[in-house]
Amino acid sequence: MKTYSRTFPILIHHVDAAGIVFFANYFILAHDVYEAFLAEIGHGIPKAIDDGEYIIPIAHCEGDYRRPMRHGEQITANLAVTELRSASFTIRTDLVGPDQVVRATITTRHVCVSSATMKPMALPTALHKALAEYLRA
Amino acid sequence: MKTYSRTFPILIHHVDAAGIVFFANYFILAHDVYEAFLAEIGHGIPKAIDDGEYIIPIAHCEGDYRRPMRHGEQITANLAVTELRSASFTIRTDLVGPDQVVRATITTRHVCVSSATMKPMALPTALHKALAEYLRA
Amino acid sequence: MKTYSRTFPILIHHVDAAGIVFFANYFILAHDVYEAFLAEIGHGIPKAIDDGEYIIPIAHCEGDYRRPMRHGEQITANLAVTELRSASFTIRTDLVGPDQVVRATITTRHVCVSSATMKPMALPTALHKALAEYLRA
Amino acid sequence: MKTYSRTFPILIHHVDAAGIVFFANYFILAHDVYEAFLAEIGHGIPKAIDDGEYIIPIAHCEGDYRRPMRHGEQITANLAVTELRSASFTIRTDLVGPDQVVRATITTRHVCVSSATMKPMALPTALHKALAEYLRA
Repeated sequence: MKTYSRTFPILIHHVDAAGIVFFANYFILAHDVYEAFLAEIGHGIPKAIDDGEYIIPIAHCEGDYRRPMRHGEQITANLAVTELRSASFTIRTDLVGPDQVVRATITTRHVCVSSATMKPMALPTALHKALAEYLRA
Repeated sequence: MKTYSRTFPILIHHVDAAGIVFFANYFILAHDVYEAFLAEIGHGIPKAIDDGEYIIPIAHCEGDYRRPMRHGEQITANLAVTELRSASFTIRTDLVGPDQVVRATITTRHVCVSSATMKPMALPTALHKALAEYLRA
Repeated sequence: MKTYSRTFPILIHHVDAAGIVFFANYFILAHDVYEAFLAEIGHGIPKAIDDGEYIIPIAHCEGDYRRPMRHGEQITANLAVTELRSASFTIRTDLVGPDQVVRATITTRHVCVSSATMKPMALPTALHKALAEYLRA
Repeated sequence: MKTYSRTFPILIHHVDAAGIVFFANYFILAHDVYEAFLAEIGHGIPKAIDDGEYIIPIAHCEGDYRRPMRHGEQITANLAVTELRSASFTIRTDLVGPDQVVRATITTRHVCVSSATMKPMALPTALHKALAEYLRA
């Protein structure tokens, strides 16, 4: 099983008036990692949008917040595929602080739909295979 | 039972490269409604932060996406309290299109914690009472 | 001469780790007012994008920051057209606090270009006429 | 003279309903580079905020947009100090596409102010010296 990780700093505008990262920004940070992951496995989002055969919108997502993230902290995102079906998959991203404490877990379920009909369709075989390498049993 | 609703347009920057509202922006749009709701019931976030007695961070949230929202659409957010406990509550926000179709549902669970200790504490009585008026059985 | 104004509150996520509104968010807040202004004068952005004849991208913008804006403040944006040419116009937006002090001024210069060729083209006559009503001598 | 550069991809949420990067996001992208630059030269923003002696807010900024940036493009930001005074400095960031064409130039003028009085004060000597190494004659 492969893993995908990225480390990035919390920047000034990620934080809100309460002095901690705004809850919605966790989804943006996790999605940025997901977008980099797709590019790395050869299935970047821009090409999929341009090709116009399918898109993979998010049907459901969840955020579990355990400890706040603060400005200047180096956060490591550990991404895994936790479910892989014919036409959908689920990504789990743990956001871990420099103290090795999991600050939050972001989960996103993606469904492949035809760009033409917007109805579910099987994931492209190559993408399905690539995702399978990151599947956590 | 009271209800709280607001209608707002989808603006150009809410939409992403796929031509639909970016999934994380649903949380921002819902939270903007929540912040306006708290102000209306007399418990605005700025005063709570300034007073420094408690904050009410989000411990968990979920997004269920049914239909996309597009640039220029007038969206109505219907907010309800769906759970109310001593130290926590859950807000459900349905985002409804001009066609009366629910585009997405955003759920956020808020826990009241002491600013000093960051440990859970009972919601202020007046806030608990105000939230109770919006509790959907 | 007509004027266009809107009042809105500074929300929790407009503010950054320094406790004041992040400088880039002034442009978002001003553009939100601009988008509402265009809708009000009957030339909303969504229709222009959908029609596909022209777009009016920003060629230049400036921000002058005098006093910070803080969470919970009610800000009034006063919008005026300060320059109007055949194919371009300039919008000036003063962001004024509840104390009547101008916190910042955002200026954006917009150029009408053909969607097909991306070359400058004359503003639609009706839009030019509508903007002229807000021109500050 | 030293230069500071970073390359990053345009992500899905940087782009708006017009299919190009939203103008305000250029300021966010440029500021992210600036924040990384300050960290690299040993004067990170988080420590300055925590220390509470001074902050360096932006007093003025400008954006010049020449060509759009699109989803998936690798953009290189070239940062230089273009003016350095006792209590203020100006940063110029050129955003360059993979085709070596400058897409936009973002300029930000920063003024050092005392956290206590909010009045201008001399830049810390070490920061002034560090910035001088990136000063473009």
